[in-house]
Amino acid sequence: MARLVMKFGGTSVANIERIRNVARHVKREIDEGHEVAVVVSAMSGKTNELVGWVNEANKHYDPREYDAVVASGEQVTSGLLAIVLQEMGIPARSWQGWQIPIETNDAHGSARIARIDGARVIEGFGRREVAVVAGFQGVDPLSGRVSTLGRGGSDTSAVAVAAALHADRCDIYTDVDGVYTTDPRIVPKARRLDRIAFEEMLEMASLGAKVLQVRSVEMAMVHGVQTFVRSSFDDPANPRPGTLICNEEDIVEEQVVTGIAFSKDEAQITLRKVADKPGVAAAIFQPLAQANINVDMIIQVASDDSTTDITFTVPTAEFDRARAILEKAKDEIGFSTLQASTDVVKISAIGVGMRSHTGVAADAFRALARKGINIRAITTSEIKFSVLIDAAYTELAVRTLHSLYGLDKA
Amino acid sequence: MARLVMKFGGTSVANIERIRNVARHVKREIDEGHEVAVVVSAMSGKTNELVGWVNEANKHYDPREYDAVVASGEQVTSGLLAIVLQEMGIPARSWQGWQIPIETNDAHGSARIARIDGARVIEGFGRREVAVVAGFQGVDPLSGRVSTLGRGGSDTSAVAVAAALHADRCDIYTDVDGVYTTDPRIVPKARRLDRIAFEEMLEMASLGAKVLQVRSVEMAMVHGVQTFVRSSFDDPANPRPGTLICNEEDIVEEQVVTGIAFSKDEAQITLRKVADKPGVAAAIFQPLAQANINVDMIIQVASDDSTTDITFTVPTAEFDRARAILEKAKDEIGFSTLQASTDVVKISAIGVGMRSHTGVAADAFRALARKGINIRAITTSEIKFSVLIDAAYTELAVRTLHSLYGLDKA
Repeated sequence: MARLVMKFGGTSVANIERIRNVARHVKREIDEGHEVAVVVSAMSGKTNELVGWVNEANKHYDPREYDAVVASGEQVTSGLLAIVLQEMGIPARSWQGWQIPIETNDAHGSARIARIDGARVIEGFGRREVAVVAGFQGVDPLSGRVSTLGRGGSDTSAVAVAAALHADRCDIYTDVDGVYTTDPRIVPKARRLDRIAFEEMLEMASLGAKVLQVRSVEMAMVHGVQTFVRSSFDDPANPRPGTLICNEEDIVEEQVVTGIAFSKDEAQITLRKVADKPGVAAAIFQPLAQANINVDMIIQVASDDSTTDITFTVPTAEFDRARAILEKAKDEIGFSTLQASTDVVKISAIGVGMRSHTGVAADAFRALARKGINIRAITTSEIKFSVLIDAAYTELAVRTLHSLYGLDKA
Repeated sequence: MARLVMKFGGTSVANIERIRNVARHVKREIDEGHEVAVVVSAMSGKTNELVGWVNEANKHYDPREYDAVVASGEQVTSGLLAIVLQEMGIPARSWQGWQIPIETNDAHGSARIARIDGARVIEGFGRREVAVVAGFQGVDPLSGRVSTLGRGGSDTSAVAVAAALHADRCDIYTDVDGVYTTDPRIVPKARRLDRIAFEEMLEMASLGAKVLQVRSVEMAMVHGVQTFVRSSFDDPANPRPGTLICNEEDIVEEQVVTGIAFSKDEAQITLRKVADKPGVAAAIFQPLAQANINVDMIIQVASDDSTTDITFTVPTAEFDRARAILEKAKDEIGFSTLQASTDVVKISAIGVGMRSHTGVAADAFRALARKGINIRAITTSEIKFSVLIDAAYTELAVRTLHSLYGLDKA
C-alpha cells in the first residue's frame, strides 16, 4: 500500500464525462489498496471566464477579491469529482483550501504555500476516504481570506499536498504522456524520457517547457517528492507510467544533454556606446529591477574607444515598459542609441551530465554556425546553456541540437 | 444614519453591467451616510448550470458536495460587486458564509440558519466598509462544511443578516417593484401594495406568490425586520419605495382582503368508498407523511352506505410517488378506486381583516358559483381561505375575487 497524490488539470476535468474518466484513474489506484488524495484544477475555460469578469469589473482590481472570485472554479470540480467517485462506490469528500487548511502568505494572486496541515485528510484515509482537494487555492491564516497561487498553481498545490502527507508519489496527469526531450510538435523525433532529474526539470520548465509549473518542481526538489508526469487520456485500466522526476542519483543511464527547451518569450535590447566606467551597469539594471523587470542574458562588448555595447534580454511582456524606463534614464546612463528586437528565441540545452563533461556548449556553437545560424547572446550555468538567435531559425536550431546530442528517437 | 441590508437577486447581477447598476444603488445609500451590507445571489443561470453538473455527475448526490459546488455562484458575485464598489471609491469587501460565519444546521441543501456573528461586519462599518455577503450559503460549524439554504435562500440570508446586524431595514431588490394584490400578468388591474402585514405576506408566499421566499418572511416576522420589496431596475438616483412588509399595527387603512394568490402546483387525489371506520385516515396519511409528502386540503364526504370519499391535494412534484404509495396500501386502506387530477389550481384570498369580518369566504363561493365555477375543495384559516378549482378557470376566478374584494385599480 502506498500513499498517492494524483493531480488533474483543466482539460482532464473539462466536463462530467472527463471527470468520470478521472474517477476511473482514481479507482484503479484505490483498487490496488492505495491511499489517494486528488488535486484538481478548474474546468478548462472556467478560470479564464472568471478572470474576464474581474477585469471587466475593474482593471485595477483588489487581488483579495480576485482570489475570492477565481478560486471558485476549483471548488466546483472538487465537489463534482467527489460526487462521481461516490457514485462508483468510493468514499470521497471535497476539501477547499481553507478547510484543510492550506495556509499561504498574503501575496494574493500569486501566494506562496507556507504550511499544510494534513491531519484531517490522513484521518479520512483511515476511513478509506479519497480526499479531493481544490487546487490553486489556499487561505491566508491571518486575515482568513482565500488566496490563489497564480496560474498553473494546481501543480504546486499537488506537490505541496504530497509533501505534507508524506506521500510516496505525486502523479501529475496532463494532456501529454510525459516529459519529452523537446517539443514533439517541433521535432517529430523527440523522445519521451523515462526519468529526468529535479534540477533538469526545473531548468526545462524555467526555459520554456510548459509541462510543469516551475514552482511545483522547486517544491518537489526541496521536499524530495517523487513526481510523475503522465497522461490522463490513457486507458485508466492500463496507463503508461509517464516520466519520473527524481533525484539525479536515481537516474542510471545518464545522458550529457537530457533535453532542449526554447522560449519565444524574450526580447533583446542593445544599448550602443555606453560609457565604459564603473557604475554604468547599476545605472542600467537598477531601475529595471525596481520596476520588477526580470533581466536574463547580459553581454557586454568593449568597443575600440572608451565605450561599450551592452545587450540583454527581458520578457516580451515587459519589453515596452523596459524600453520606456531606459529612454527616460538615457542621460544618466549615457548611451547613444537603443536597439531592440522582439523577433528572437532563446534555445537551451539542459543536462546534469554537463557537470562532468566539457566542451558541450562549444559543440553546439560549431553545429549552429555550420547551419548559418548567428548567435546573438549566450549564457551558461552548471547544467545548461542558452543561445539567443533569430526566431526564424527556431525549428532548425532545435532540431540541430536535438540531433547533435543524440536525443533523436532510434 | 441608518443601518441597511440590501439584497439583489440573480437577474440583478446577471452580468458586470448590471452589477455596476447594483453598485449605484449601494452608492446612493452610502452617500446618504448609511451603513450597508449587501447580500447577493449568483448570476442568473449560474446556479442552474451548477445544479445541472451535479445531477449529471450523480442523481443521488451527496448533499454536502452539492453545497460545495452550488455555493460557488454567490462567491463569484460577492467578489465582483466588491471590486465594482471599490472602483467607485467605496471601500468594500466580500464575505463568504464561513467567513462571517453564518452558522447553519447540517441539513445540507436546505439548511437552516442557527446563528450569525455580525461582529466583524460591524467592525467593517466602523471603517466605512460595505460588506458584500454571498447569499444562500452558510457553514455547518461542527463539520466545517459549506451549506446552502435551498432555492431562493438569498432572501433568507438577507433577512437573517439584517436581524444579526440589528439593521433598521432590509431592502429586497427584485425584478418587480413591490408586492401586488395579485399577479399583474393575470389581472392587469392588480395594484402594488404600499404595505402588507408579515402574516399576510407569509400566506401569500406559501400560497403561490413568488415574490419572496416563505422562510425569509417567517424570519422577518420573528425578528421584526422591516423589509421592503422593491425594484433593482429603477433609476438608482431616484428609486420608488416598493412595498413595506411590517407589523399589522403599522398598517393604517386595512382592507378585509389584501391579495389573491394562486398555485398550479397542486394535484388532487380522491379515494372512493373508503370504509368509514376509525383509523382509516391514519392508514391513508401516515405512509404519505413518512415519505415526506405534504398533504394540503383534505375533505371527507360521507356516502349513504357505510363508506366515505376522501379527497386531498399533494404537490404536483410528489403526485406520482403519492399515487404509488396509496395503490400499494390499497388493501390496508380499503378503498374501491383512486381518482386523480393534476389539472387543478388552488386560489386563495388573504387578509388580516378576515379576523374581524365574517362571511368573507361565503361571498366568494357565491361569486364563483355565479360564474359557473365548480369548487372541488375548500380550506380556511384565520386570515385566508383557499378553493381548489379546474385550472381552466384560473384567470376568471382570480379576476372575479380580485374585483369582488375591491382590489382593482381605481
